[in-house]
Amino acid sequence: MNGFQSLREECYEANMMLPKLGLVLFTFGNVSAVDREKSVFAIKPSGVPYDALKPEDIVIMDFDAVVVNGNMRPSSDTKTHALLYKTWDDIGGITHTHSTYAVACAQAGMDIPIFGTTHADHTHRDIPCAAVLSDSMIEGDYEFETGNQIFGCFEQKNLSHQEMEMVLLQNHGPFTWGKTAEKSVYNAAVLEEVAQMAMLTLQINPATPRLKDSLRLKHYERKHGKNAYYGQGC
Amino acid sequence: MNGFQSLREECYEANMMLPKLGLVLFTFGNVSAVDREKSVFAIKPSGVPYDALKPEDIVIMDFDAVVVNGNMRPSSDTKTHALLYKTWDDIGGITHTHSTYAVACAQAGMDIPIFGTTHADHTHRDIPCAAVLSDSMIEGDYEFETGNQIFGCFEQKNLSHQEMEMVLLQNHGPFTWGKTAEKSVYNAAVLEEVAQMAMLTLQINPATPRLKDSLRLKHYERKHGKNAYYGQGC
Amino acid sequence: MNGFQSLREECYEANMMLPKLGLVLFTFGNVSAVDREKSVFAIKPSGVPYDALKPEDIVIMDFDAVVVNGNMRPSSDTKTHALLYKTWDDIGGITHTHSTYAVACAQAGMDIPIFGTTHADHTHRDIPCAAVLSDSMIEGDYEFETGNQIFGCFEQKNLSHQEMEMVLLQNHGPFTWGKTAEKSVYNAAVLEEVAQMAMLTLQINPATPRLKDSLRLKHYERKHGKNAYYGQGC
Amino acid sequence: MNGFQSLREECYEANMMLPKLGLVLFTFGNVSAVDREKSVFAIKPSGVPYDALKPEDIVIMDFDAVVVNGNMRPSSDTKTHALLYKTWDDIGGITHTHSTYAVACAQAGMDIPIFGTTHADHTHRDIPCAAVLSDSMIEGDYEFETGNQIFGCFEQKNLSHQEMEMVLLQNHGPFTWGKTAEKSVYNAAVLEEVAQMAMLTLQINPATPRLKDSLRLKHYERKHGKNAYYGQGC
Repeated sequence: MNGFQSLREECYEANMMLPKLGLVLFTFGNVSAVDREKSVFAIKPSGVPYDALKPEDIVIMDFDAVVVNGNMRPSSDTKTHALLYKTWDDIGGITHTHSTYAVACAQAGMDIPIFGTTHADHTHRDIPCAAVLSDSMIEGDYEFETGNQIFGCFEQKNLSHQEMEMVLLQNHGPFTWGKTAEKSVYNAAVLEEVAQMAMLTLQINPATPRLKDSLRLKHYERKHGKNAYYGQGC
Repeated sequence: MNGFQSLREECYEANMMLPKLGLVLFTFGNVSAVDREKSVFAIKPSGVPYDALKPEDIVIMDFDAVVVNGNMRPSSDTKTHALLYKTWDDIGGITHTHSTYAVACAQAGMDIPIFGTTHADHTHRDIPCAAVLSDSMIEGDYEFETGNQIFGCFEQKNLSHQEMEMVLLQNHGPFTWGKTAEKSVYNAAVLEEVAQMAMLTLQINPATPRLKDSLRLKHYERKHGKNAYYGQGC
Repeated sequence: MNGFQSLREECYEANMMLPKLGLVLFTFGNVSAVDREKSVFAIKPSGVPYDALKPEDIVIMDFDAVVVNGNMRPSSDTKTHALLYKTWDDIGGITHTHSTYAVACAQAGMDIPIFGTTHADHTHRDIPCAAVLSDSMIEGDYEFETGNQIFGCFEQKNLSHQEMEMVLLQNHGPFTWGKTAEKSVYNAAVLEEVAQMAMLTLQINPATPRLKDSLRLKHYERKHGKNAYYGQGC
Repeated sequence: MNGFQSLREECYEANMMLPKLGLVLFTFGNVSAVDREKSVFAIKPSGVPYDALKPEDIVIMDFDAVVVNGNMRPSSDTKTHALLYKTWDDIGGITHTHSTYAVACAQAGMDIPIFGTTHADHTHRDIPCAAVLSDSMIEGDYEFETGNQIFGCFEQKNLSHQEMEMVLLQNHGPFTWGKTAEKSVYNAAVLEEVAQMAMLTLQINPATPRLKDSLRLKHYERKHGKNAYYGQGC
């Protein structure tokens, strides 16, 4: 076809995981997938229900959020995706959802505390909640500034986007990323589960202490460290 | 047929979305669809389970809640629908459910505070809870007065039914509307999701502040304003 | 066959509604159906998973809990069913589950307060929680005494089993009944939903007042009163 | 084949119950099944999604956690399974999950109090939460020491692994076991349900007392005692 077919299909397949995983109601989410060689990414069109979505509807964008190919209007969050791809040149996919428990944490403006190994298997730090944007950022180039707010949060908290592949935007919801679009969706599902577990833990005991360092690092390292022994090593 | 077939089918299809969206148990809900040219609306018959419902069971009513066509007894909430159609001449469909989280808010008599963009994507105001009806309204023409109670609430809170397409009735549950029956069901699902998110947010922090004005209006305007860029513009 | 086939099938069909309605995990529930002419009832065999259950497994019992027909051991709760049928001669079916929210209320020993019309559509009183049995009742004929405890609770609270078709047993779970086995399962699902709604309401505001008398009676009467206009009148 | 086919299939079937019962997200769980005659057990390979899992992927291990047969890397929790099989010579299967409510209790470090008969039908004691491992245990042979921590917890609380077939590991999640792999999965589902019920009970009344002795023992004995009358006696 026009050279974007496999990218469109990768993006389509990753988007279709969202309803299967129970992460979206109607059109409240979007996934993108990048092609680093061509310096473009594919993203869900805006406002299209998942059960009507077709691979050919996927829009191809460049990193300045200009449409390269496609007949539909891209997701309204496209500029956030574009800026993340432009700045973090080793990520391959991005997911944005309004999943219930992650949104609740974002609405309360709460970093998700690390309470257990389910969390530590994926990151050894609290999952950050970036502060709500300033009025001038909101009234300016809002979706572009959303990306900048994520960078500011990671810098302030000294977080690496390679070790922490998820963030909450206060009053909004989660963005997650990964080496592939599929991995970014996986991270969105993990974030939702970890958010629910943390909320239930705080319901039992609001003063629950964080996971101690040794266990926090043990679980992270056994899955992601130099001598990792989780998974099939591929 | 008798001229109401397509209206009956529109109403039937919208009703059948309720169980698919998890918004009803047994018969606890009803959707209606209007035909403005004929000044009639179609509504679910009372007490019929969704898996037994057929398009021909749908009852055709006028705006004074008199049966125009059909063999079954209409929903017991029909007079509320009739009064809303008669008064708000630009709405095309109405949905009533007893969905779990919306009912919990209604039972607690709580307006749903606007905490995030999921809410602001649909309305930039708190979702109102109309006070329980007075004894004389309940003992009089109850379902008709339910409509009046909604109007009173919107007047008192200075709300427009075009900008706010949902309401809770205290101690009862939600009514939602929209340009079509399908849109009213969509709003019923959004309300349930936003209600759950708000309750979870309050569980984390009962003193969570409302969404600030700039973000509240930004999200509403990007989807509903003059220069909206959400969706496919159709 | 042996004269019990249609009774067995009625009982089987009602039992199979429990997993479809999400009211049972594994074997944690049982439904029975009565044949008043023959003075027998049919009940699920003990400990048989729902996906292995067959109509011919259903056991036929008399009202003294003696097996009349069948090769399997009846539900361990059979004596409770037998005593309810013997004492309340106008009920046609009984359901017992361990559904999640109803059990939580039973474990906390809480009557379910009437907070809204979803509740009032089915009964205009709080749903009672019968106190835990005395040690001598538990160590005696436990399942038989469970029936007696229900009667004692209804007498003390001045409840009619015709107007209140559900009860919680403290520290145990719900029993529901009705004119048919199917209706008793319907009541079990309503109870679970009403229990969840009440718990969520109390989470928002622990001091939520009960539904006022006028609305409480209005909703009950429009569905169950002399001049009821809910449903198709059949 | 190579003599392990039926063991692999038993293990495979039990693993596939986890997603059906809603107990796992992605790869967050594992089930093993033992062959006492051959002194080996079969376990899920590490990091393989359930919908890609095949019986031939299952790995055969000895009780010192050495691979006996199979091409894939076993679950990272294998040493815990091995030590439990070696020490408790009458168990036939083990399940580990990260199910939501059980993990919340583990993260809060809470024993699950016995509040009702759903719990007492399976064990008459609180479900223990073993304390988080010491730093030296974590930094040493972590998964092996996890087994030792379970033994220490059972000894300290004077629990029998035959009467209590489940445990929480603080900050981690549940392990369950039983006479067969299938029974260990059954116990994992019961634990999740009982954990949710206990949390909801504490939400209603944080001071809810435990189940009294007579009822606690009655329900346990009617299902597990010498004169048990629950089930079909086989």
